[in-house]
Amino acid sequence: MLRVRATRERKLSRERREAAAPGGHVEFGRFRVPRDRPCCGWVSSPPPGACCPRVPASGRRAPLGAGRAAAGSSGGGRSPALKTPKGTRDHPPAHVALRDRLLAAVVTCFKRHGAAAIDTPVLELRETLTGKYGEDTKLIYELQDQGGELLALRYDLTVPFARYLAMNKITNMKRYHIAKVYRRDNPATTRGRYREFYQCDFDIAGQFDPMIPDAECLKIVHEILSDLQLGDFIIKVNDRRILNGVFAVCGIPESKFITTCSTVDKLDKMPWEEVRSEMVGEKGLSPEAVDHIGEYVQLHGGLDLIEQLLQDPKLSQNKLAKEGLGDMKLLFEYLTLFGITGKISFDLSLARGLDYYTGVIFEAVLLQPENDHVEEPVSVGSVAGGGRYDGLVGMFDPKGRKVPCVGVSIGIERIFSILEQRVKASGEKVRTTETQVLVATPQKHLLAARLKLISELWDAGIKAEMLYKKDPKLLKQLQYCEDTGIPLAAIIGEQELTDGVVKLRDVAIREEVDIPREKLVDEIRRRLEP
Amino acid sequence: MLRVRATRERKLSRERREAAAPGGHVEFGRFRVPRDRPCCGWVSSPPPGACCPRVPASGRRAPLGAGRAAAGSSGGGRSPALKTPKGTRDHPPAHVALRDRLLAAVVTCFKRHGAAAIDTPVLELRETLTGKYGEDTKLIYELQDQGGELLALRYDLTVPFARYLAMNKITNMKRYHIAKVYRRDNPATTRGRYREFYQCDFDIAGQFDPMIPDAECLKIVHEILSDLQLGDFIIKVNDRRILNGVFAVCGIPESKFITTCSTVDKLDKMPWEEVRSEMVGEKGLSPEAVDHIGEYVQLHGGLDLIEQLLQDPKLSQNKLAKEGLGDMKLLFEYLTLFGITGKISFDLSLARGLDYYTGVIFEAVLLQPENDHVEEPVSVGSVAGGGRYDGLVGMFDPKGRKVPCVGVSIGIERIFSILEQRVKASGEKVRTTETQVLVATPQKHLLAARLKLISELWDAGIKAEMLYKKDPKLLKQLQYCEDTGIPLAAIIGEQELTDGVVKLRDVAIREEVDIPREKLVDEIRRRLEP
Repeated sequence: MLRVRATRERKLSRERREAAAPGGHVEFGRFRVPRDRPCCGWVSSPPPGACCPRVPASGRRAPLGAGRAAAGSSGGGRSPALKTPKGTRDHPPAHVALRDRLLAAVVTCFKRHGAAAIDTPVLELRETLTGKYGEDTKLIYELQDQGGELLALRYDLTVPFARYLAMNKITNMKRYHIAKVYRRDNPATTRGRYREFYQCDFDIAGQFDPMIPDAECLKIVHEILSDLQLGDFIIKVNDRRILNGVFAVCGIPESKFITTCSTVDKLDKMPWEEVRSEMVGEKGLSPEAVDHIGEYVQLHGGLDLIEQLLQDPKLSQNKLAKEGLGDMKLLFEYLTLFGITGKISFDLSLARGLDYYTGVIFEAVLLQPENDHVEEPVSVGSVAGGGRYDGLVGMFDPKGRKVPCVGVSIGIERIFSILEQRVKASGEKVRTTETQVLVATPQKHLLAARLKLISELWDAGIKAEMLYKKDPKLLKQLQYCEDTGIPLAAIIGEQELTDGVVKLRDVAIREEVDIPREKLVDEIRRRLEP
Repeated sequence: MLRVRATRERKLSRERREAAAPGGHVEFGRFRVPRDRPCCGWVSSPPPGACCPRVPASGRRAPLGAGRAAAGSSGGGRSPALKTPKGTRDHPPAHVALRDRLLAAVVTCFKRHGAAAIDTPVLELRETLTGKYGEDTKLIYELQDQGGELLALRYDLTVPFARYLAMNKITNMKRYHIAKVYRRDNPATTRGRYREFYQCDFDIAGQFDPMIPDAECLKIVHEILSDLQLGDFIIKVNDRRILNGVFAVCGIPESKFITTCSTVDKLDKMPWEEVRSEMVGEKGLSPEAVDHIGEYVQLHGGLDLIEQLLQDPKLSQNKLAKEGLGDMKLLFEYLTLFGITGKISFDLSLARGLDYYTGVIFEAVLLQPENDHVEEPVSVGSVAGGGRYDGLVGMFDPKGRKVPCVGVSIGIERIFSILEQRVKASGEKVRTTETQVLVATPQKHLLAARLKLISELWDAGIKAEMLYKKDPKLLKQLQYCEDTGIPLAAIIGEQELTDGVVKLRDVAIREEVDIPREKLVDEIRRRLEP
């Protein structure tokens, strides 16, 4: 549902500036990145860049603005096959470890709100996807006709969800789905976007009383962005019905609503003057109508603005706009009960790209920490978005039966980039393995002793490793602990075998104590208690 | 690396029969499926099959033998688009919940052995995949040429891992990877196989002393199958070098080693007589050579058999076979130290399909519980497999530098089917949500009170739901708790608001107690402590 974009916020109210976070934190949310740990969980002496390959900066998403096209990462280009497809990348252990922790925080929130998980195939019938994404249909990856059905890769998780509901005749469901989607974005026009990326969706389907599920979606965005401590943010809210009402009262013909909508959507990237000239020039709207639209879509505020527009002589006469404004008022009531209106802005410039929205739409943007010399805080991009799409399921139902839906997509890839940059800037490393003990020997010919001891530890559920050499040097074994962040070493030599003990070494403080072998497991557990 | 197959074990030794598990358990491993819980986490009155759609039995993998081709599940077929692609399926919440718990057990084991996780794209360059899978190359899904690179969907996780190692010049790594792979299996020839399915791989790459990582892979299989309590199992072990040595001493020309190997591999599905006639007929081998092979490949045993073959006048003269037998002896030494030889069988009929194996190969099969009238326990199919592939990374390296690898793939889809059947047979339901409290109201006009209270609970980290109706009936709200397994209801009515309390109801025993509102969160936490 959400395609994360780098945006620049034009105007922001005073409260938001005042609430701007100091930024630069290393900790984020409920995570704590362990200090002084190397990032590689395995390679003891990796060649530079080999263990935890970092995609060169130029090939990464540029989180603060426009970047160059995302290219497939390559290992040097000497062999033509030695790369990932354009716009895709491998995720090394340090990526996966950080991403897993981020996703765990998001899933915790989705589960806190009672959602169940579903999974749908990466492959869909082409006809399932066609006619759902407007112009973007050309970005769908199609499979070769190898005999049989014509297939494509899913473009988002929303259309497959609607197909799932219709196919199984499910009329209400609260589900989340975290999975990869595929878009053949033209690299020349993208700004660091990947062609394979994660989406992270929460949706509520069903016929319910107005604005209750919609308010919960906004609460979820608020919870996740707060939990992750990404800095100050604002959630912009609008309603497609209000936008369409505005277009109607300004004299735009209904046939031009969608195209007008997509030009308005550019207001987060360009100033009004440019948007205006595109509307008048390319779209052929009358200058008077466009100026009239301009008066509306530059407005943003809270309950006061809703009340003002409900009194607006023209808008209040438009059925759609009135409906949308009435629901917006209700939404703000519920958000007040949730105590989150401080971060919500009713913003008439928010339009969102996708065709299928029918009611409330929203988008969360992070705000750059305030600088002394900057007049207003600047948005650093959209990190969540969504809205109401009441018609999509009906497009799949043979009888056109509608199932109203509202949902939110968390921009996990952008959030990941921000967290990763933060970790990188701090010089900290993410540990990629969870090994608790290295089983080591100080003399030769003790492989059997190591194998026997490590087997005992594994069987007791202790996370243990040993070097895969018959006679490794003790120094190498201890170095491996330091390189990969293993906190304990269980050292067993000839003397320890004779004495029936194991030398337990605290790697950080280099302290060793003899532990009777039968008490080793308990002692390790005791030492590693949180 | 592993493609799970339904197999029938021809011959099994006495010890295995004696160790056969009684079977029929409902609990499995460290999981405990909660009793008396409906499977749907959301829909309160689902139409039959709608909430937790079950793929009809005919479309599922038949875990005990041959089934019909896996077809895409369909919602009735009235609309042509209302289905998933052939050979793929949606996973409803009950699937995902069970699968997530299964995967968690596997990941726990992989992490216990110090593995880090990586992730690679679903898309690979076609040239990365070609020439790696022999005849099966035709089963690769290719993407349409939409301009740019020629792409395909990954066929397994092993080739992408080798590409990753070569591309990043990584010479040693212990990683796991759990992800979907894609195979255009001909449904007419498959037995309930899906075209999109999970693989679950653990691999150790690097130049190490012989058999130490190989032994660890077998230990991992042993741990996972034991932890999951799937019943009795046996891990068959062989070595490609021994097989090739056997072929050589039997007079098979080297050019026919691979094709002979793939016929030997059928010994788990057909009796020796059929395999023999295929070798003589289709493959054109001499009857004498084939009969000679037959003497070897029907052997299985333990250390005694290894010793016997090391003394074999012909085999002991073959360099490859001698190397393989020497390593097999070493492997058994290490497995003895791990204490797992009771489940290991050195089995000369094991050949495994893939071309890229170069040394030790292995495959774990579950054994059917012994019946009184059955002479020998019967294998119910392969649930894990793997082996050593020392040449694959070198195929990607521009200078052909080799990185020796050994790995194991857990047949998660087959294990899932077994667990699912067990849950189904027991009539138990898997809860698909984790909601702890339903916030309910007994009278009308109390939506605001519900929203305020549920917001407090969410902010305290309590998993809470409410019905999305302004004025739902209390009975409906309590029914929802029973339907979805929510253990507590927090009821707030006019009286409770006046008294500053919340009525906390234990849904199972229908007991209600007034709790002061400020103590509600603590009381809920106390009640839900494990």
